[in-house]
Amino acid sequence: MVFYMSRTRTITWHDPMEGAKEAMQMDGIDYLQAMSDEKFSMPPLLHTLDFTVTLIEKGNVVFEFVPQEFHYNPIGTVHGGIISAILDSAMGCSVHSLLPAGKGYSTLELKVNFLKAITIKTGKLKTMGKVINLGGRTALVEAQLVDENNTIYAHAVSTCLILNF
Amino acid sequence: MVFYMSRTRTITWHDPMEGAKEAMQMDGIDYLQAMSDEKFSMPPLLHTLDFTVTLIEKGNVVFEFVPQEFHYNPIGTVHGGIISAILDSAMGCSVHSLLPAGKGYSTLELKVNFLKAITIKTGKLKTMGKVINLGGRTALVEAQLVDENNTIYAHAVSTCLILNF
Amino acid sequence: MVFYMSRTRTITWHDPMEGAKEAMQMDGIDYLQAMSDEKFSMPPLLHTLDFTVTLIEKGNVVFEFVPQEFHYNPIGTVHGGIISAILDSAMGCSVHSLLPAGKGYSTLELKVNFLKAITIKTGKLKTMGKVINLGGRTALVEAQLVDENNTIYAHAVSTCLILNF
Amino acid sequence: MVFYMSRTRTITWHDPMEGAKEAMQMDGIDYLQAMSDEKFSMPPLLHTLDFTVTLIEKGNVVFEFVPQEFHYNPIGTVHGGIISAILDSAMGCSVHSLLPAGKGYSTLELKVNFLKAITIKTGKLKTMGKVINLGGRTALVEAQLVDENNTIYAHAVSTCLILNF
Repeated sequence: MVFYMSRTRTITWHDPMEGAKEAMQMDGIDYLQAMSDEKFSMPPLLHTLDFTVTLIEKGNVVFEFVPQEFHYNPIGTVHGGIISAILDSAMGCSVHSLLPAGKGYSTLELKVNFLKAITIKTGKLKTMGKVINLGGRTALVEAQLVDENNTIYAHAVSTCLILNF
Repeated sequence: MVFYMSRTRTITWHDPMEGAKEAMQMDGIDYLQAMSDEKFSMPPLLHTLDFTVTLIEKGNVVFEFVPQEFHYNPIGTVHGGIISAILDSAMGCSVHSLLPAGKGYSTLELKVNFLKAITIKTGKLKTMGKVINLGGRTALVEAQLVDENNTIYAHAVSTCLILNF
Repeated sequence: MVFYMSRTRTITWHDPMEGAKEAMQMDGIDYLQAMSDEKFSMPPLLHTLDFTVTLIEKGNVVFEFVPQEFHYNPIGTVHGGIISAILDSAMGCSVHSLLPAGKGYSTLELKVNFLKAITIKTGKLKTMGKVINLGGRTALVEAQLVDENNTIYAHAVSTCLILNF
Repeated sequence: MVFYMSRTRTITWHDPMEGAKEAMQMDGIDYLQAMSDEKFSMPPLLHTLDFTVTLIEKGNVVFEFVPQEFHYNPIGTVHGGIISAILDSAMGCSVHSLLPAGKGYSTLELKVNFLKAITIKTGKLKTMGKVINLGGRTALVEAQLVDENNTIYAHAVSTCLILNF
C-alpha cells in the first residue's frame, strides 16, 4: 500500500445574488467594469476555479487562468469542463458587454473543440470572446484558448438568447 | 456600504497522476470500478466541483451533484461550465467503460444545450452517458442532465478520439 | 483523353410560396398532412434532392431517400450536405408538427455527426426527428439516419427558435 | 382549385468515381486545381445544387452560389441543408488543399448557425473555409457565408478526420 500525500485548498466567495439585481439596471459593460472594480463581488465559480478577468471592453472580455492540479481529470490533464467553463465565461461576458440596461442573456448552447492537452506545465492561458453576430433575439460568439505564444488549445462557439427584463 | 458575509469551503485531493499509469493496463470498466472502490483516488476536479459517481456499468456511467453556491455564475444560477463538466465526465467515462486495456480516449469536441436554469432549489441532478456509436477511431456519446422527477436541464453530445497506448 | 458518359436528370417543382401563407393559419400537423396529401406542393428542395416524407405524427416526422449519384461528393460518397439536409428536414418538421396555428419555427443551429460513409450500395435510408424539449422560445430536437437494418449513418441535434406570427 | 405553374430544371454530371483514384496520388491543392481546370469533372452535388468554386489557394477555397427557387424549403427561404452543403464543401476543400499526396480527409462533424434568412432577392453568396488547426489526426475548420456587402448569413465549424491512404 502506497501512501499518497493529500493536497488542500480553501476558497472564499460572497453571496452570489448581491449583484444580480443591479445587473439588470446597468449597461452590461458598466456592470462588468463594476464587478472588476470590486464594487460587486466576482461570481463564486471564478473563485472555485481560480479564473481572473483581465480586460473588459465592448465586445471583448478576456479571462485567464493558470492550470493547477485541482483542475485535473483522471488522466493527468486539465478537465474539459474547466476549459468549457472559461470559454463560456469569456463568450457570455463579451455578449453582455454589448447589451444595454434592461437586457440580459442566457447561454443557449455551447460547442467546444479540444485541440491540445493542457497540464500544469502549459502555464497561463487566456481567452477573449468575439461576438460574430448580435441580433434581436440571439447572439453568436466565439472564443479561443491560447497560451502566451498564441498556441491554440481549444476553440468554442456559443449561441446566447437575448432577454428583455 | 453593505457588509456581505463571506463563505468558505476547503477541498482535498490526491496526486492526480497516481492512477494514470495503471489506467492504461486495465480494461476501462475495471479501472473505473477500482476508482469508485477507492483503490485509486478520484480525479481532483470531482473534489473541486463536488461531483459523485453513483453507477458504473459498461456503456453507462452515472454522475450526480447537488447544486451549491460555489457553482454559481454572476446571475445567480449554476454556471454553464459546471453543467458542461458533469456531462463531459459522464460521457467520457461511459466511452472509457467500453474500452479494453491498451486503449484510451480523449474528448475531441463537446456540444451542450442548456434547457432550464439550475439553482440550489433544484436539488440533486444526475446524468448518464449513452454511447451512440463506438468505432475504431472515434466514439459518439450523448447525455442528459435530469432531476429526480426526470425533468431535463441540459443535453449534450460529444465526439471522442479512441487512442492506442 | 478518356471519354466519360454524361448523366442527366430533370426535376420539377411548384411555386414555393404557394403554401407559405396558409401554413401560418394552420396547426403544424395539419399543414404537414395537407402537404403530404398534395393539397399543397412539396417544397422545391425535396424534389431537387429526391427526398420523400413517409410518416407524419405529432413530434415524429419521417423522411426517406435512396442515395443516388447526383448526391455525391468528389470522393464517391453521399455529400455531407445531403445528409445534413434530410436530418434538418426531419427535425424541423417534427418541431413544426407540435406547433399550433399562429406559431412557426426557424432552425437556429444544426450539429451533425457523420458516422459511416453512404454510397448507392447503401440503399434506402430514413430519419425520424425526435423532439427532446419544446419550450416557449426554443426547441431542441435530434434525429438519426438509419438504413433498413437500423445501422446508424449519421446523428444530429438542432436548436429551433419558436416564432409568433 | 388554383392552377400553379410547374418549373423544371435539368442537371448534367459525370461519373463521380472518375477522379477519386487520382485524388489519392496528388497533393490536395493540385487535385482541386485540376478539378477546377476541368481535367477532372466537378462532383455531382455541385451540379445538383449549382455551386461554383471561384478560388483555390492553400487553406482557402471559395465556393459561391446564387439562391434559386429549387433551393427552397416550404417557408419560402433557402433550405438549411443547402447552406450546410456549401459551408461543408468550402471547409472540406480548404482542409484538403493543405494535405499532401497519400492523405485524405472525411468530415467527422459539422455545426452550422443560421443567422439570417436567404431568398432569391439576397443575390450571390460566397464562403471561404479557414483552417483553425491542422493536427496529425484531425483538423478544425470554420467558414462564414456572406453576401457581396459582407453581411453574414451563416457560420460553421467542422472537425475533419485526417486519413492515410
